[in-house]
Amino acid sequence: NIFHNVLFFPDQHIACKEHFNSSDGCLRSGCKYAHSETSLTHMLSYLRSARKTLDLCVFVITCHELSDTVIALHERGVTVRVITDDEQVDITGSKIGAFRAAGIQVRQDRSSYLMHHKFALIDEDVLINGSFNWTRQAVTGNNENLLITNSRDIVQPYIEEFERLWEQFDPR
Amino acid sequence: NIFHNVLFFPDQHIACKEHFNSSDGCLRSGCKYAHSETSLTHMLSYLRSARKTLDLCVFVITCHELSDTVIALHERGVTVRVITDDEQVDITGSKIGAFRAAGIQVRQDRSSYLMHHKFALIDEDVLINGSFNWTRQAVTGNNENLLITNSRDIVQPYIEEFERLWEQFDPR
Ligand SMILES: [Zn+2]
Ligand SMILES: [Zn+2]
Repeated sequence: NIFHNVLFFPDQHIACKEHFNSSDGCLRSGCKYAHSETSLTHMLSYLRSARKTLDLCVFVITCHELSDTVIALHERGVTVRVITDDEQVDITGSKIGAFRAAGIQVRQDRSSYLMHHKFALIDEDVLINGSFNWTRQAVTGNNENLLITNSRDIVQPYIEEFERLWEQFDPR
Repeated sequence: NIFHNVLFFPDQHIACKEHFNSSDGCLRSGCKYAHSETSLTHMLSYLRSARKTLDLCVFVITCHELSDTVIALHERGVTVRVITDDEQVDITGSKIGAFRAAGIQVRQDRSSYLMHHKFALIDEDVLINGSFNWTRQAVTGNNENLLITNSRDIVQPYIEEFERLWEQFDPR
């Protein structure tokens, strides 16, 4: 059952939390948020499907919908590992500090070059990858793309790249 | 004949022009350049395989090996179209001016957000896509990835995105 799914950004609207999360739905008249699926809600659904592992290799992460979902997976018992760029760790809005505070393992490069990947591996089975940085601007502003696939020919090299960088960036 | 190929950067060395381009090969003793294929030489080979069209949707392009190859395709009669980000057009080293001077059609966004895609479509048949910006730093410095595929399920949405943006960024 090989699948490929391509998502494009920007989303025109952010998804309505009332509509998607409460049993009564959204009761606001003229609600400005999206009541149908967006690229971000699709992306979040893939992330929430993780049962065992989430390996995240992202240049930057500031989008709280994404970081909240990653932390929720960790709290649910999913083994989360994060690789990121050292120069992005301390920028305004970075969620790397929140990851570490939550007990998530984080490793970072120590070079002046960029750890510029922006991919996620769900249960070593599904890859999310593209131009998309994990920021709010990428969701609602930029032209961005994400490919989601479980094709083994595509997923396997990214697993190997993740393991290679995880060892390379071991601080010990 | 569906294929997927994944390339990772950085390359440890830039390919040796003497070795790859001259019939006698490289005669320099202790040559510092690569005498075997690199991720960049693989990428260039895919680009050079274009026979009819090259649609390029790239945030930034400064790498002269890549821009020289694009211009050579245009001069060989391949129909080249380029979409780029307006804020990157005038940066130091940008090859967009060279593209326009060569007669290549270029369109750019006019927003304060980023046209952050970095993909190429070869003959509307093969997609090159990933984190990789078309810069020398991405080749020899950063951790970057590129997926090359001709899977129709993946390629088709990118064709549609290119056509959508090409119309959206029509300056007339
Ligand atoms: Zn609502
Ligand atoms: Zn040489």
